[in-house]
Amino acid sequence: MLHRDQAEVEFSRIVAFSDGVFAIAITLLVLALEIPPNADVADALGDRGAEFFAYFLSFAVVGRFWMAHHRIFGSIALFDTTLVLFNLAYLAFIALIPFTSEVLGNYSDDSTGVALYAANLTAVSIASWVMVRYAYRHGLMRDEAERYRARFAGVGSLLVAAVFAFSIPLAFVSPTLATISWASLFVLGDRMVDRLTGIRKPT
Amino acid sequence: MLHRDQAEVEFSRIVAFSDGVFAIAITLLVLALEIPPNADVADALGDRGAEFFAYFLSFAVVGRFWMAHHRIFGSIALFDTTLVLFNLAYLAFIALIPFTSEVLGNYSDDSTGVALYAANLTAVSIASWVMVRYAYRHGLMRDEAERYRARFAGVGSLLVAAVFAFSIPLAFVSPTLATISWASLFVLGDRMVDRLTGIRKPT
Amino acid sequence: MLHRDQAEVEFSRIVAFSDGVFAIAITLLVLALEIPPNADVADALGDRGAEFFAYFLSFAVVGRFWMAHHRIFGSIALFDTTLVLFNLAYLAFIALIPFTSEVLGNYSDDSTGVALYAANLTAVSIASWVMVRYAYRHGLMRDEAERYRARFAGVGSLLVAAVFAFSIPLAFVSPTLATISWASLFVLGDRMVDRLTGIRKPT
Amino acid sequence: MLHRDQAEVEFSRIVAFSDGVFAIAITLLVLALEIPPNADVADALGDRGAEFFAYFLSFAVVGRFWMAHHRIFGSIALFDTTLVLFNLAYLAFIALIPFTSEVLGNYSDDSTGVALYAANLTAVSIASWVMVRYAYRHGLMRDEAERYRARFAGVGSLLVAAVFAFSIPLAFVSPTLATISWASLFVLGDRMVDRLTGIRKPT
Repeated sequence: MLHRDQAEVEFSRIVAFSDGVFAIAITLLVLALEIPPNADVADALGDRGAEFFAYFLSFAVVGRFWMAHHRIFGSIALFDTTLVLFNLAYLAFIALIPFTSEVLGNYSDDSTGVALYAANLTAVSIASWVMVRYAYRHGLMRDEAERYRARFAGVGSLLVAAVFAFSIPLAFVSPTLATISWASLFVLGDRMVDRLTGIRKPT
Repeated sequence: MLHRDQAEVEFSRIVAFSDGVFAIAITLLVLALEIPPNADVADALGDRGAEFFAYFLSFAVVGRFWMAHHRIFGSIALFDTTLVLFNLAYLAFIALIPFTSEVLGNYSDDSTGVALYAANLTAVSIASWVMVRYAYRHGLMRDEAERYRARFAGVGSLLVAAVFAFSIPLAFVSPTLATISWASLFVLGDRMVDRLTGIRKPT
Repeated sequence: MLHRDQAEVEFSRIVAFSDGVFAIAITLLVLALEIPPNADVADALGDRGAEFFAYFLSFAVVGRFWMAHHRIFGSIALFDTTLVLFNLAYLAFIALIPFTSEVLGNYSDDSTGVALYAANLTAVSIASWVMVRYAYRHGLMRDEAERYRARFAGVGSLLVAAVFAFSIPLAFVSPTLATISWASLFVLGDRMVDRLTGIRKPT
Repeated sequence: MLHRDQAEVEFSRIVAFSDGVFAIAITLLVLALEIPPNADVADALGDRGAEFFAYFLSFAVVGRFWMAHHRIFGSIALFDTTLVLFNLAYLAFIALIPFTSEVLGNYSDDSTGVALYAANLTAVSIASWVMVRYAYRHGLMRDEAERYRARFAGVGSLLVAAVFAFSIPLAFVSPTLATISWASLFVLGDRMVDRLTGIRKPT
């Protein structure tokens, strides 16, 4: 376990590098949108409903993960090589979203396409949870972060991963239901987690 | 409402993340330019006039929005989760410009293509206005920014959005006129806003 | 003319934004390299000589411009909106290099393709010169930078632009000669400028 | 040799620029993954095993190089133009990885495709070694870094380059064996280097 001063890779750079990957991944989402030359624009746009939906959904999803990533790293006091590697694994799944989001936009009615997207979000959530759990277990968190242990590293924090994981088989029953289950996370997510873990956001 | 010190996501990171999205989006504009292998380069370049125009126009547009975004965030003292979400929504429309700009370049004579670009710029302008208005209403602005309230959050600041919005139906009358209406904003924009709102830039 | 403290857009952000555009443009160069699926890799690689040359040349060119950009902005003490706009125009030509570099790689024997690349580098050089000249004329440079006025804003600094500009017609005589003329700039460039302007690098 | 204060290009910007190239290159890896429209998603995914492997392998490789780059630049006290140019050459090979990784994913059974990837990693390793050696030879390293001279600039540090270089001919014997030889580096790498050079990581 290294203090910031002894650190091989400085703490601020890990965060800046992560931010860079987030910013690039979120901006690359737009590459999934395309209208071929010599098409009828109005018709082509009419056919792109699912792709626009996937773009805005994924922008919201990556943006949300970015906010969560910041909250996590704002609470970390120390880090070691293992944490940096966990963070890289986490980012590998974030950087994958432009691909799975493009598949979701092109194949919004296909169970496998929707399940792939759900699997990607599940992997991000689990990677995030493993990273936070490791940081708590190895005393890498700030003292003030101890009160959030239940929220960040407890069972409740796995709820998000569980919903995403559950939507993988759900996609084979109904791709639409799976999509709705993610959207519900954005509306209910925070409150459900708080109620389950019995903690409240500070004012 | 959170002060900088209590903030979940630190203020400087929101700005750095936004800058990253701006820098990536403005650089991705170039991907719309392409000359297929085995073409006659001189001929192909001659046919790319509208695409080059769209590239430089969009570079100027994104650059201008970036400058405006900085002026806004330079005036903000506090932020809350809602403001971060508004900023993400704003960035989602900024990151969309490489797509609508490519369509504009490929379909400069097509009303729908031009209207799509106009709609994108309208969305950015409205998202910006909503964000600023929210910041003023909830006391998130610096005290010094109070004198710019009319300029930033008043009716005059909606003028830009209004011109873009008006150019959407205009595109169906004449794509060229719609394009000229945006260009006029760059020349007259600041002065008109200042005259309408009765305020002057500080020296 | 605004001091750093009064500045609408903070100075450090202009530089950071510029760095971002440079880093993205230099990394996007790789997208010009591609081997289609189901090809013979060895054969395809053998055919890619000109594309690899264009990649490494452009990497060196953008890298060099980035170093020059830093030297310039390291000497600037104040800035105004005009300088920011000049910088955006400069960056628009930097961000264009991935496109003209791809054309150069695909059409290394085609006069128009080589001339397009030369025109792009000419535009960057002139934009840089206009920006520096403006900064000197309007007293935006640091006092210590006064001794470099001849080097940065004088006739000698236009030499680079002149070589690039001269290579545009040269490309129509011989694409190879035009390419060699750029390469010579990297070897002779600094020394020739110093001799012509009669100044020396500080130790 | 320039101290930080006299530096043309400031030290922190070299590192930030390098980080930007790393972050962009690592995120561009995802562009190699694609499922064409109107395909059978499940079938297409099943065929993408080698591409997913290449994605995650290259993400780990670039991430590892990024960590090593930071450790190196964390030990550098001074820099000169030559070091900046060495760093640019190093980054040119890092930014090439999205291309060679895409080839590896598409041609995982093709000796030339695997050898190209091995050659790319060899080039990065050698460029890194040249850069570090130069920094030590010209006294650009911090005093504390002297004890790592054997580890960073000695024969052991060339071991990684040697394994990659050896895997180039190995790819023509068996592409699979070559791939395994890189993977073994991640597992054994650090320990072998430490044993060979007789030094240990500080606690």
